[in-house]
Amino acid sequence: MSGIGRTVWAIAEGYIPPASTGDSREMTSHETVCILNAGKAPAHVEIMVYFADRAPAGPYRFTVEAERTRHLRFNDFKDPAPVPVNTDFSSVITSDVPIVCQHTRLDSRQAALALLSTMAFAAG
Amino acid sequence: MSGIGRTVWAIAEGYIPPASTGDSREMTSHETVCILNAGKAPAHVEIMVYFADRAPAGPYRFTVEAERTRHLRFNDFKDPAPVPVNTDFSSVITSDVPIVCQHTRLDSRQAALALLSTMAFAAG
Amino acid sequence: MSGIGRTVWAIAEGYIPPASTGDSREMTSHETVCILNAGKAPAHVEIMVYFADRAPAGPYRFTVEAERTRHLRFNDFKDPAPVPVNTDFSSVITSDVPIVCQHTRLDSRQAALALLSTMAFAAG
Amino acid sequence: MSGIGRTVWAIAEGYIPPASTGDSREMTSHETVCILNAGKAPAHVEIMVYFADRAPAGPYRFTVEAERTRHLRFNDFKDPAPVPVNTDFSSVITSDVPIVCQHTRLDSRQAALALLSTMAFAAG
Repeated sequence: MSGIGRTVWAIAEGYIPPASTGDSREMTSHETVCILNAGKAPAHVEIMVYFADRAPAGPYRFTVEAERTRHLRFNDFKDPAPVPVNTDFSSVITSDVPIVCQHTRLDSRQAALALLSTMAFAAG
Repeated sequence: MSGIGRTVWAIAEGYIPPASTGDSREMTSHETVCILNAGKAPAHVEIMVYFADRAPAGPYRFTVEAERTRHLRFNDFKDPAPVPVNTDFSSVITSDVPIVCQHTRLDSRQAALALLSTMAFAAG
Repeated sequence: MSGIGRTVWAIAEGYIPPASTGDSREMTSHETVCILNAGKAPAHVEIMVYFADRAPAGPYRFTVEAERTRHLRFNDFKDPAPVPVNTDFSSVITSDVPIVCQHTRLDSRQAALALLSTMAFAAG
Repeated sequence: MSGIGRTVWAIAEGYIPPASTGDSREMTSHETVCILNAGKAPAHVEIMVYFADRAPAGPYRFTVEAERTRHLRFNDFKDPAPVPVNTDFSSVITSDVPIVCQHTRLDSRQAALALLSTMAFAAG
């Protein structure tokens, strides 16, 4: 299971809903990139975030250990700067080893949650 | 980060829900194409819209500046003609430089919103 | 805009929810394949439907005219046989010219609708 | 219709919602991989499940007969071990013949269900 995936991924959609129903972490509105590293070496991942009207932010740096997955919430990004809510963005994910990336949103602004998900675009 | 993506994209699904719950822009039912231009040159984008029973409309023209994203709502398209609501359509997006396109709908016809999203098909 | 897409597509998920809230066509639960023919010649499309425990059904035959889209509901398939509701299925779509296929479900079993969508798998 | 698809697929997102509204199988929150075997030979499928903080589980073994589909719920996986609810995971699906894989979640934690779906990533 070494080498599954690609090293450059892009997600054109990005949006953190500005409100939630309830306050559990589980049900908080969130924008997520799920990263699978099915290989035998750790993945050093960098994420750049693109906006409509200002320069990109990042890189945000993460390690995904060998044979592990991380479901990263853009809501939790802090360094170099938080990702603003209620703001359109996109992202590009690069890694030094092959990974697989999928984009998921949980939106609980209204009393019934909504979900979306799509595999990211394998760009390189 | 130059040259990420493709220059021809297609979205076979297209539908603007004819009603919404509430009247904020944020919660208005909408059909969106999110376009990421992660490259160093502006992207000149043309969108053609295809219908079930009449000739295609367009091109709708947009610029996505270098290292920026635009989340375009089909609801907002005006020139050469608005896209009708409650009508099946498809779209093809072309650009003079590589871009990444993703399709998202927010449907708030009922009291709880629904979402869908998928990466567009990289056709060229 | 000739020749956009592929000639063989597959959708592994398939399910017609057995109930709906309301009885308008618009809000009836449905399972759809959206087909874009952006080319200059009509597309002659055949769809095979696969089940868990019996032989495949089809081919279901449709024409998508040049530069047109059709959003076909599996609910409406009749010849050679209707597609049963509340039953897992998959589908393969073939065409004599390139097309683009996307899968969408609207599920209104509960009082708030739910949506899913994904580009089909370009298999050939 | 022989040979449609690929033999290695990956799904970076994975999560079984820990609760449901109602207790019918149909409306129970579930995480599913839909597998289409459109070919003429049975598909022997192995699924590995990856976690954030411990070693992968599996392989989970299934057969998808020729010209059949199976919509497998991770909720039902038992051997070698159940997949925990409310836990982030990813999966890799391998087969000895080409198959097509799609990921779908039905989340009925709240009174109105939510859906997501995406084609899996064709990794090999």
